[in-house]
Amino acid sequence: MTPQGSQVLTDAVAVEEPLELRLQGGPEPLTLAVLMRTPGHDRELLLGWLVSEGLLPDGFQLLPDDENRNVWHLFTPEYARLAAGARLGVSSSACGVCGTGSIERLAIRAGSPVWTAETVNPELILGLPQRLLAAQAGFHATGGLHAAGLFSARGELRHAFEDVGRHNAVDKVVGHAAQHLPLTDQLLCVSSRAGFEIVQKGVMAGIALVVTVGAASSLAVETAQTFGVTLCAFTREGRFTVYSAPQRILSKRP
Amino acid sequence: MTPQGSQVLTDAVAVEEPLELRLQGGPEPLTLAVLMRTPGHDRELLLGWLVSEGLLPDGFQLLPDDENRNVWHLFTPEYARLAAGARLGVSSSACGVCGTGSIERLAIRAGSPVWTAETVNPELILGLPQRLLAAQAGFHATGGLHAAGLFSARGELRHAFEDVGRHNAVDKVVGHAAQHLPLTDQLLCVSSRAGFEIVQKGVMAGIALVVTVGAASSLAVETAQTFGVTLCAFTREGRFTVYSAPQRILSKRP
Repeated sequence: MTPQGSQVLTDAVAVEEPLELRLQGGPEPLTLAVLMRTPGHDRELLLGWLVSEGLLPDGFQLLPDDENRNVWHLFTPEYARLAAGARLGVSSSACGVCGTGSIERLAIRAGSPVWTAETVNPELILGLPQRLLAAQAGFHATGGLHAAGLFSARGELRHAFEDVGRHNAVDKVVGHAAQHLPLTDQLLCVSSRAGFEIVQKGVMAGIALVVTVGAASSLAVETAQTFGVTLCAFTREGRFTVYSAPQRILSKRP
Repeated sequence: MTPQGSQVLTDAVAVEEPLELRLQGGPEPLTLAVLMRTPGHDRELLLGWLVSEGLLPDGFQLLPDDENRNVWHLFTPEYARLAAGARLGVSSSACGVCGTGSIERLAIRAGSPVWTAETVNPELILGLPQRLLAAQAGFHATGGLHAAGLFSARGELRHAFEDVGRHNAVDKVVGHAAQHLPLTDQLLCVSSRAGFEIVQKGVMAGIALVVTVGAASSLAVETAQTFGVTLCAFTREGRFTVYSAPQRILSKRP
């Protein structure tokens, strides 16, 4: 049954499974999120997601389920705030939803990221995607994973994570560094396009410079401009486009 | 402030804005969905999303808001069923969530797509991404849009849509054809990777053959195998990988 010119091969595919986060410590368990993700670094993913949503409690325990590896439990005395926040996420999107509204809601939760380091050499930015790719074990095996990496202002790779979902990869990066927020003077590089949510996650983590391999969306650009995030997109083939806050990129006058 | 070697250009970016679907006709409006999408063909998008979620009512009116272009209203006598279905989507994901669970929930709502046409020539499949790209006006302008297209078993392009989100592009394709479901003997080609939700949307629309340019995830492959969907991924550079139901691909013995 194998067509001519074809072969039967054993093929590695990127693993995708749903992960559920259950809020505990209140009158009843409440599902905060179901994320379609690549298993591994689930704690980082959930911490990063909580940061991105503005829901990270001061005091909490985040524990895997005893039996189901796709379920985690968040125990916190702040049950009421998180339950309200989760509901607010639904209801606030229901009042006057539009691009401006999304940016305004984000502004309630976050300020502009701070950058205290020197300006960044464009060559450094151009090299980030290749260095991120070099750290991507899963992509080489499957071709199906996105990656996100955190770099210092000098271009040193802090850590990188992979996932079938680009948003998850960013959440894992942020979650891994959750003890050290805001991520002042760090660069976030993502192998994907830059949509609103990529910039949103950067803003919530206090990252002032975001670099993506793919295109930027209109709402991503507006959000980066509003919060003073430097957004570099289309970073490939020896060039990139700066959509906002270009003052952080080194200007070499001849 | 422009770095050396850079230019200040007017750059077209893909438009991304949230779209809210409000369920009307019951005791109170209920937000069914907020989709980050590229404006345009919103009716098709929402119809396709309703099909994908198993929520399309028999009798309904789908109307844009008078003032906010990012809000649509769904009036239906089936308010109670849709409200329950929307809540079920949340609560069912909360019980025993895992890959198998996702497939089982899909099986409750859909059967296996039917294919009555002849086997498909591999050359036809190889040519679909290029023909889809040719129909992508927005991608050429912005580089930031995904596309999905519906093709006949002979490879004729029925219709194609673009969106910042790959799931939205598929929903627009399905929504445009919503009067003619199931989409027997049609091929769906998507410019992105194949995750679970891409295959899920194909199954719900009754599409038996799904072709993607990018990689397939593990849950996408499992779902395609369970429902007998032919899933062709990595369709580029003169080759593709068939992950399931290969009997629909023509076998040319020498």
